[in-house]
Amino acid sequence: MNIDLNCDMGEGFGPWPMGDDEAMLDIVSSANIACGYHAGDPSIMFRTAEMAKQKGVAIGAHPGFNDLHGFGRRVIRGDSPAEIERMVAYQIGAMQALAALAGHKVTYVKAHGSLNNMANEDMDLALAIARAIKGVDASLVNVCMPGLLMEKASEQIGVKVAREIFADRTYEDDGTLTSRKKPGAVLHDAEFAAERILRAVQDKAITTVSGKRIPLEIDTICVHGDEPSAVAMARTVRAKLEANGITIAPFAKAGS
Amino acid sequence: MNIDLNCDMGEGFGPWPMGDDEAMLDIVSSANIACGYHAGDPSIMFRTAEMAKQKGVAIGAHPGFNDLHGFGRRVIRGDSPAEIERMVAYQIGAMQALAALAGHKVTYVKAHGSLNNMANEDMDLALAIARAIKGVDASLVNVCMPGLLMEKASEQIGVKVAREIFADRTYEDDGTLTSRKKPGAVLHDAEFAAERILRAVQDKAITTVSGKRIPLEIDTICVHGDEPSAVAMARTVRAKLEANGITIAPFAKAGS
Amino acid sequence: MNIDLNCDMGEGFGPWPMGDDEAMLDIVSSANIACGYHAGDPSIMFRTAEMAKQKGVAIGAHPGFNDLHGFGRRVIRGDSPAEIERMVAYQIGAMQALAALAGHKVTYVKAHGSLNNMANEDMDLALAIARAIKGVDASLVNVCMPGLLMEKASEQIGVKVAREIFADRTYEDDGTLTSRKKPGAVLHDAEFAAERILRAVQDKAITTVSGKRIPLEIDTICVHGDEPSAVAMARTVRAKLEANGITIAPFAKAGS
Amino acid sequence: MNIDLNCDMGEGFGPWPMGDDEAMLDIVSSANIACGYHAGDPSIMFRTAEMAKQKGVAIGAHPGFNDLHGFGRRVIRGDSPAEIERMVAYQIGAMQALAALAGHKVTYVKAHGSLNNMANEDMDLALAIARAIKGVDASLVNVCMPGLLMEKASEQIGVKVAREIFADRTYEDDGTLTSRKKPGAVLHDAEFAAERILRAVQDKAITTVSGKRIPLEIDTICVHGDEPSAVAMARTVRAKLEANGITIAPFAKAGS
Repeated sequence: MNIDLNCDMGEGFGPWPMGDDEAMLDIVSSANIACGYHAGDPSIMFRTAEMAKQKGVAIGAHPGFNDLHGFGRRVIRGDSPAEIERMVAYQIGAMQALAALAGHKVTYVKAHGSLNNMANEDMDLALAIARAIKGVDASLVNVCMPGLLMEKASEQIGVKVAREIFADRTYEDDGTLTSRKKPGAVLHDAEFAAERILRAVQDKAITTVSGKRIPLEIDTICVHGDEPSAVAMARTVRAKLEANGITIAPFAKAGS
Repeated sequence: MNIDLNCDMGEGFGPWPMGDDEAMLDIVSSANIACGYHAGDPSIMFRTAEMAKQKGVAIGAHPGFNDLHGFGRRVIRGDSPAEIERMVAYQIGAMQALAALAGHKVTYVKAHGSLNNMANEDMDLALAIARAIKGVDASLVNVCMPGLLMEKASEQIGVKVAREIFADRTYEDDGTLTSRKKPGAVLHDAEFAAERILRAVQDKAITTVSGKRIPLEIDTICVHGDEPSAVAMARTVRAKLEANGITIAPFAKAGS
Repeated sequence: MNIDLNCDMGEGFGPWPMGDDEAMLDIVSSANIACGYHAGDPSIMFRTAEMAKQKGVAIGAHPGFNDLHGFGRRVIRGDSPAEIERMVAYQIGAMQALAALAGHKVTYVKAHGSLNNMANEDMDLALAIARAIKGVDASLVNVCMPGLLMEKASEQIGVKVAREIFADRTYEDDGTLTSRKKPGAVLHDAEFAAERILRAVQDKAITTVSGKRIPLEIDTICVHGDEPSAVAMARTVRAKLEANGITIAPFAKAGS
Repeated sequence: MNIDLNCDMGEGFGPWPMGDDEAMLDIVSSANIACGYHAGDPSIMFRTAEMAKQKGVAIGAHPGFNDLHGFGRRVIRGDSPAEIERMVAYQIGAMQALAALAGHKVTYVKAHGSLNNMANEDMDLALAIARAIKGVDASLVNVCMPGLLMEKASEQIGVKVAREIFADRTYEDDGTLTSRKKPGAVLHDAEFAAERILRAVQDKAITTVSGKRIPLEIDTICVHGDEPSAVAMARTVRAKLEANGITIAPFAKAGS
């Protein structure tokens, strides 16, 4: 049995680093690389792709709003779906070029921050992102939360999806993440989180905060690397899965 | 006999338009599209590529320094050749993605403004740009001024070149453009410029300000479209060439 | 009887101009100068302030979201009121410095685009803007739509207000502008608009789309200069007011 | 006997922090705060000014090129002196506004990185910066390296100067810093650097790499805080000076 671990990376900019990408590339099997709009720059994109290549880690374009100052976490309304489509295509293409320079290949896309959240609340936006992906490279996989609009839009447009759950977040009964504003929404106990993820992968289901069981396909688990404690949790999740006979491997392989 | 006419396009940004791209796309055979660093944005890139497709005009990526405020005309020193390589690759990839979305294909690259000038004075920089082009897509052609470093670097790296002369500029004996600071460096008489270009194309040579004749290969002629008088000159150049049996056609064809 | 005419200006950026500021400075008595966040740059800010000084036109800081690409018209959510306060203060201070360099003085503030709209729907945001104004220079006047939250917040914080109506827009019964999406929301007939504004100034009241009369104080009338037809309308409004014995003069005078 | 210690601060941007400003504000007497062009943003500027106020540390505007990606360290040529003057004024004004919001006051200016270096090689640029300072607030002091063009330009324009030496750098016989490319140009031994600075302050002279003694006025010593070892060196320099009866105090006091 295989499962993928994915993590956001390449989130520095110019003189400012962020996170310990090198450590995370030893833990995960897929690296979501920021494309210069909410974080990242051509040199960081290149180096992250190059390191991922060396360590056998798959890479995905991680497009976001053009909002360095807000790190792509601010809600920005006013762009038409067509504008969003082109903005996403721009970032995917840029990432493909840097991957090519590094001898690697982009195999998937995962929308970042507010862009992802907004797409899961607005079908026109979700469709725009799916069209961008298909228009640039029809073989790219879109990483989506299961059951939400981005998954539906991808299916409608004909874009393959990888279904993702989060290692450190709890879920509501509708399949969305519990708001960070609520206490307990973010898990900090690595062992607890790892155990919970193992169960989800084995059962093919998540358990919500109310105790409801939601069956779902799980292709990839999102872990974080922005703080030392996050790296530790990612390591624990990986170890727990491997100790239970589950192999960590990219859901998408270049050339497959 | 065929010759290409190329023009910088897509040089608006957000709410600010620049030039009359629609008019120019009826005159030229190749459109150098700004890639968002010194001008342009994803929507402008897309629309320019789409219009070019409709009118049978070839498109090239026109990468520049990340300098919207200075329009890529300021000299920026401090990036390593490796950083320049990645920055150029980024822009080419972004342009390729928007071209794909528009059903078109990038067939060449032409460096913009200071980036181009600096590359013709610094072999390491010229090599970096050539490596970026080859690394992203080895079939791309690099548009270069004949006899200068960018052409040499392209040949060294193994990148095809298209040799370019300017319709509205005079030349020094070393093959460089006369500095804009000198009187007469920029031609304003459309008829005079058109006649001069016709002679250059027919003779396969340019005549410098001192009267020296420099034989060279000419694949493409750069015209401008940023002012009504520039559009008029471009139209006159095209008419003059056609009236003398020369066909205007892209030097690079997608799929050729 | 005096009334002020105000207009957004200095809305170019780097190589891109916008509007005919020189023409508008002969028509209006107050210039709202963009501060580099949604448009404008230090040189444009300086030149606009310098021209305003020469023509006896008052100047105001016109702060907006840090969104050149969206021209400050996109809704951007995610900044705390404290962050908004500091962002507004930054722009006011920058404008004051350029005004000082030009021998002029900023006497008022008018929030731009989405920032203004959002403040009229969110008291915390309106209070943040008012605090920024007072914190930077307690003598500055805040230009507000009468009856909405920005006016209330200014009064609560102790910031003087100038009440503004729009020459080319219709009003709803709650005192807000009719949405641009509705037909007829934007007036294009200069003579009609001028007559309507004259009546509003003389009656100290506006008439809404339903025919309701809303009495209000009017200190300034907003006109536009982004298109030739807008300049013509502004000129017509001024002529109509003057022909009826109303003097066009700044509501705020430096040193008063 | 008094001497000032100054340090660059507020050099984060959006989600990216830099340096340990809180620790440095316990060591230095003057904080050079980045103004949003090469680093810093309104919220960081405000918080740094607020902390400085609480700890009795003077603040200066630290303007640089509009180059976040290059951190103001890239050489950017192409702006006229008039454009540089306005760009510097913009940043000073922005910093003054944030200082006002924090209840503090900007008492000096220190140009950052390439802008500073270029001004010391180009009198027109140095004069432009001096004019910006005087034009915005004639009471502001310009922090300069003694004997170089920025000092001369300040005197010519009538701007007060504070003369600065660097704690961790060696000097050439012409009073410039030894290039960072040469071995030994940057001192890493805190005790050695502190001893050397003590001697310079007591003797009112620096000793160059060739052993030459250059007498000069010293108003302030630049220390760094971007790495833990830099903080340790700054602390050692301060302790050494205090142990020898020298008081650390701002060269410029608000209201003095």
